Amino acid sequence: MISVVILGAGNVATHLYKAFKITGDVKVTQWYNRNIEAINAYKNEVSITDDLSQLVEADVYIISVSDDAVKGLTKKLSFENRLVVHTSGTVKISDIDKKNRQGVFYPLQSFSKSAKIDFANVPFCIEAIKSEDYHLLKDIAIALGSPSKKVNSDQRKVLHLAAVFVNNFTNQLYRVAHEITESEGAEFEMLKPLILETAKKVQDLSPYVAQTGPAKRNDKKTLNKHAKLLTNRHHKDIYDLLTKSIQHTHGRKKL
Amino acid sequence: MISVVILGAGNVATHLYKAFKITGDVKVTQWYNRNIEAINAYKNEVSITDDLSQLVEADVYIISVSDDAVKGLTKKLSFENRLVVHTSGTVKISDIDKKNRQGVFYPLQSFSKSAKIDFANVPFCIEAIKSEDYHLLKDIAIALGSPSKKVNSDQRKVLHLAAVFVNNFTNQLYRVAHEITESEGAEFEMLKPLILETAKKVQDLSPYVAQTGPAKRNDKKTLNKHAKLLTNRHHKDIYDLLTKSIQHTHGRKKL
Repeated sequence: MISVVILGAGNVATHLYKAFKITGDVKVTQWYNRNIEAINAYKNEVSITDDLSQLVEADVYIISVSDDAVKGLTKKLSFENRLVVHTSGTVKISDIDKKNRQGVFYPLQSFSKSAKIDFANVPFCIEAIKSEDYHLLKDIAIALGSPSKKVNSDQRKVLHLAAVFVNNFTNQLYRVAHEITESEGAEFEMLKPLILETAKKVQDLSPYVAQTGPAKRNDKKTLNKHAKLLTNRHHKDIYDLLTKSIQHTHGRKKL
Repeated sequence: MISVVILGAGNVATHLYKAFKITGDVKVTQWYNRNIEAINAYKNEVSITDDLSQLVEADVYIISVSDDAVKGLTKKLSFENRLVVHTSGTVKISDIDKKNRQGVFYPLQSFSKSAKIDFANVPFCIEAIKSEDYHLLKDIAIALGSPSKKVNSDQRKVLHLAAVFVNNFTNQLYRVAHEITESEGAEFEMLKPLILETAKKVQDLSPYVAQTGPAKRNDKKTLNKHAKLLTNRHHKDIYDLLTKSIQHTHGRKKL
């Protein structure tokens, strides 16, 4: 049984807590948050505290607070030589105060408060200085039913950046499609199967091979038809830049 | 039983043919293609022809050829007052020669030669001049197990445009993520669950509500970290434009 103390009460911390609760191999022995109100609802099932000096001994301390707060919080820990990890995509492993054993346990997924998370779909990027710490973190991922991978800080940073492209930016393209359809009384609803299919396709094919459409074919007639339809200048900027990008990737045009 | 003649042998035509073959309510009585070699493999199961003057009578003629070829092909048909539809997102219904009853049966999905299509995930945009033709096309969609919707030519045009955003452009963002991760020896593979989750999320939530991330939060520290990582000017252009777009949508910035 691996004992865990969770520090923080955001989306990731809360989803981790709930997932650990139903695994047999990991036990959350304590939950810390600066503002105890946020975790008060759990006081009957786990020891809660807002006092860092009261933290109990555990195999690993998982710090899941805002990026800016990680460094300061680890400085304030009063113990030494224990495994302390954060869950951030962008914070350096060395930002964890070096009096403890440093590690990273970054879930590469989008967490929202309400939506249920299936941890089978949450790959963990694991980093640790000591080999036994890496294996302990890997065992925690296994207990969650999650895939995991050894990822160093540079790789983690680019994965976090790439995640913005496939998550936030992709979602913004959905938003633009929503604006375009609604402006003509068409239904965004009609696009939902295509959205899902587009994401499914690159589970097996590379995005390069999966590409289709007028930009890739250099189908000028369709590109011109679209240009005429794009009355919103901002939508047009996105259309032009991504069309150029596709044509560059597929050898139609130099940037 | 609805009798259908298919004209054309591209991806859409071929997938339609295969799907009709296993429905009980639609029968493909003939398959035409200008180049008969392309459909020769089917000659033992369906009547094939490359001669327009040999077309048999049917309830509907589905023209699934390149956009540019639709108009000319319908002109050459030697019969009158029958239902002739095309499957294009951008061709006007009036491009079908008016000696026949005009209609559109546009599947809003990405078709590739090899990948299997589940027609339950292919919404059809249906347009027809006569009400009984609309209902016949709707019955064909039902026979395929597909959702369908009455969509006029203006709405269809914007749906086709919006489809480019959610399909081709989204796929290009996946491609950029692929380039970014590979350049640092990180694995694109790690992003696949997030790609799928992002698409699933907007099946239930609007893209507006689903949005998260540094651009929406106006998290300048993370935006600056990303800016430093983006060494490829072209990736940076996309990052900047879509960040600005998110900030505009969420009231952070004027465009």
